[in-house]
Amino acid sequence: MAGLTGGDPSLLRRINSTVVLHALRATDSATLTEITRVTGLSRPTVEGVVEGLIEAGLVVEAAADEGTARRQGRPARRFRFRAEAGHLLGLEIGPHRVAALLSDLDGRVIGAQAKDVGEGAPADERLERLRTAVAELLRRAGVARGSLRAVGAGTPGIVEADGTVRLGTALPGWTGLGLGERLSRSFRCPVLVENDANAAAVAEHWKGAATGSDDMVFVLAGLSPGAGALIGGRLHRGYGGAAGEIGALHLLGRDVTPETLLSTTDEPLHPLDEQAVAKVFAEAREGDRRARAAVERFIQRLVHDVAALVLALDPELVVVGGWAAGLDGVLEPLRRELARYCLRPPRVALSLLGEAAVATGALRLALDHVEEELFAVEGATARR
Amino acid sequence: MAGLTGGDPSLLRRINSTVVLHALRATDSATLTEITRVTGLSRPTVEGVVEGLIEAGLVVEAAADEGTARRQGRPARRFRFRAEAGHLLGLEIGPHRVAALLSDLDGRVIGAQAKDVGEGAPADERLERLRTAVAELLRRAGVARGSLRAVGAGTPGIVEADGTVRLGTALPGWTGLGLGERLSRSFRCPVLVENDANAAAVAEHWKGAATGSDDMVFVLAGLSPGAGALIGGRLHRGYGGAAGEIGALHLLGRDVTPETLLSTTDEPLHPLDEQAVAKVFAEAREGDRRARAAVERFIQRLVHDVAALVLALDPELVVVGGWAAGLDGVLEPLRRELARYCLRPPRVALSLLGEAAVATGALRLALDHVEEELFAVEGATARR
Repeated sequence: MAGLTGGDPSLLRRINSTVVLHALRATDSATLTEITRVTGLSRPTVEGVVEGLIEAGLVVEAAADEGTARRQGRPARRFRFRAEAGHLLGLEIGPHRVAALLSDLDGRVIGAQAKDVGEGAPADERLERLRTAVAELLRRAGVARGSLRAVGAGTPGIVEADGTVRLGTALPGWTGLGLGERLSRSFRCPVLVENDANAAAVAEHWKGAATGSDDMVFVLAGLSPGAGALIGGRLHRGYGGAAGEIGALHLLGRDVTPETLLSTTDEPLHPLDEQAVAKVFAEAREGDRRARAAVERFIQRLVHDVAALVLALDPELVVVGGWAAGLDGVLEPLRRELARYCLRPPRVALSLLGEAAVATGALRLALDHVEEELFAVEGATARR
Repeated sequence: MAGLTGGDPSLLRRINSTVVLHALRATDSATLTEITRVTGLSRPTVEGVVEGLIEAGLVVEAAADEGTARRQGRPARRFRFRAEAGHLLGLEIGPHRVAALLSDLDGRVIGAQAKDVGEGAPADERLERLRTAVAELLRRAGVARGSLRAVGAGTPGIVEADGTVRLGTALPGWTGLGLGERLSRSFRCPVLVENDANAAAVAEHWKGAATGSDDMVFVLAGLSPGAGALIGGRLHRGYGGAAGEIGALHLLGRDVTPETLLSTTDEPLHPLDEQAVAKVFAEAREGDRRARAAVERFIQRLVHDVAALVLALDPELVVVGGWAAGLDGVLEPLRRELARYCLRPPRVALSLLGEAAVATGALRLALDHVEEELFAVEGATARR
């Protein structure tokens, strides 16, 4: 506390660097005069800080604006944040496919790559497919592996803080896998592993259906349902990373699984066969009686799971995602039933990101990590 | 940001005052030398701050310790925080009773008062009973109304941020009641209104069964069940204050209410008749077959509600409260069933505060408010 009155020179330099980086990142480019005005720092301080940032490769002198050059004899030098100074990866490791998104330090996506993988593939094969996808993506984009500053990954299951999958029944060999450690072998930067529904929640909040909602729930309405929640704009992981794992709810006093509910025969669907699910939805739309009954049963079940989440958390918004096809049919019944049972019914919207949600959220988590490192000043001051 | 380097004299005074108050509040009494050592402030600064705090009535010279006086000719003056410089009230407004707790500025309870009230009593009558209880409590404790610095109140229902009851079906005339405004007429200090289960969660975390758990759920296992949750030590109210209102969950695909489940006859129990509930629990303990079956049904229902909360939130600990009698019988089945259905089962404990939980939590919320005013420095610095 007493230190606040004195001042630590290295902390002060870091604060000032961060202030300048913040200002530059919020605009295309700026002159020293503009930076001085926006930040409230003195001219010599700004000059020193900008010089340091140029040396660190994070700032560069921008090409002079032609318009300005024409109006004035000698335009002031302009500087810009070098978003290309580093790169980020967002990975999805799912039951049917692996996918990777590549972005610059502003989070602007500059490449994507996905590969199918068998749902029965062992962990080694799944990770090998992912490594191949990443290698192709980096090569195509012309980005060196050493330029990566952080990697995020989203995958089904309960993920511990260190990236170990505590429980993951959807993928073979996933429970107990040290996924963070395994991925780290391929990268020299930090790797962050997150539950897939959690990553999707972050993605919809970043650039999907929930950009205006800091209190939202994302429901992965698959056959193995899961959910992710943001509370006050922050991911709620739960004490042991298991928050939102509502898949077990139906076991309580209900013996039927979604695979049974959605079946139009006496045989349950395969738990991971989402094509079969899409087929049932399509048949229901075409008026097939058994398919409609199956979809009806499935929606009741989804309503029950979502209602439990809504009653527990009271979010502003529920975003439903997980399948490309047929899911829009669940919105109306979901709205109607939530209005009946919830004291304060939330808005309900369809995912805008679709199958890109998990990798996009993983990318955002990597970006958050880098921003914390580059721009974590207010927190650092408060903690002193 | 730039202000950090210069320094605002009034902010600095406030920071220094807070630092000294913090130090004094953590101990019985301290000399100026001790305060200087603990705070890192200079001797003249400490002298000035302590003088200001004495003028404000928050600090007083402590009586000299006799042991010290004997050892040294002239002992250094000692100072202490005046916890008696103000008082706080924690109120419970429930279906069957109103209750009030009185404390000093350290949160030490110095008096309590409760009054029965009919479950059918209109809002005016209920509030009048509460006013009487408060008046008697203050008179008995010899505390002037003007000494109150904050009042907390816990009550069933969804409570808005301004203290209005958005929905409260448990008490007649409660829905739409401007409870905060009504209570404010009796006090000149801030009044904070909170949902009863939320208040109980805060209480168990403060001095009950959850003192070590920042991620916990309190389940009010009454006939009208509700829950409160702390996430990272902070109350989770939800976007509209409706988080944890799990009472409606049974409506989803289940037509039975707890009143029906717990009945041993064809007639449901009265929704608020908790004596009838205690009787059923007692009969079940004595081996009555119908009572045992009723308790079994009720426990299954409770397990379902709690499982929904646990799957959504993943707390470290679930504290069950709400009745004095019979509730201990639900712990074992609850633990067993949660272990079956939850991917990461939480610990389960019985409320330690019993029927004092709601008023105790309301008192803690009042204390939080006062502490924020007296001691809110880190937040103030970070927000600058």
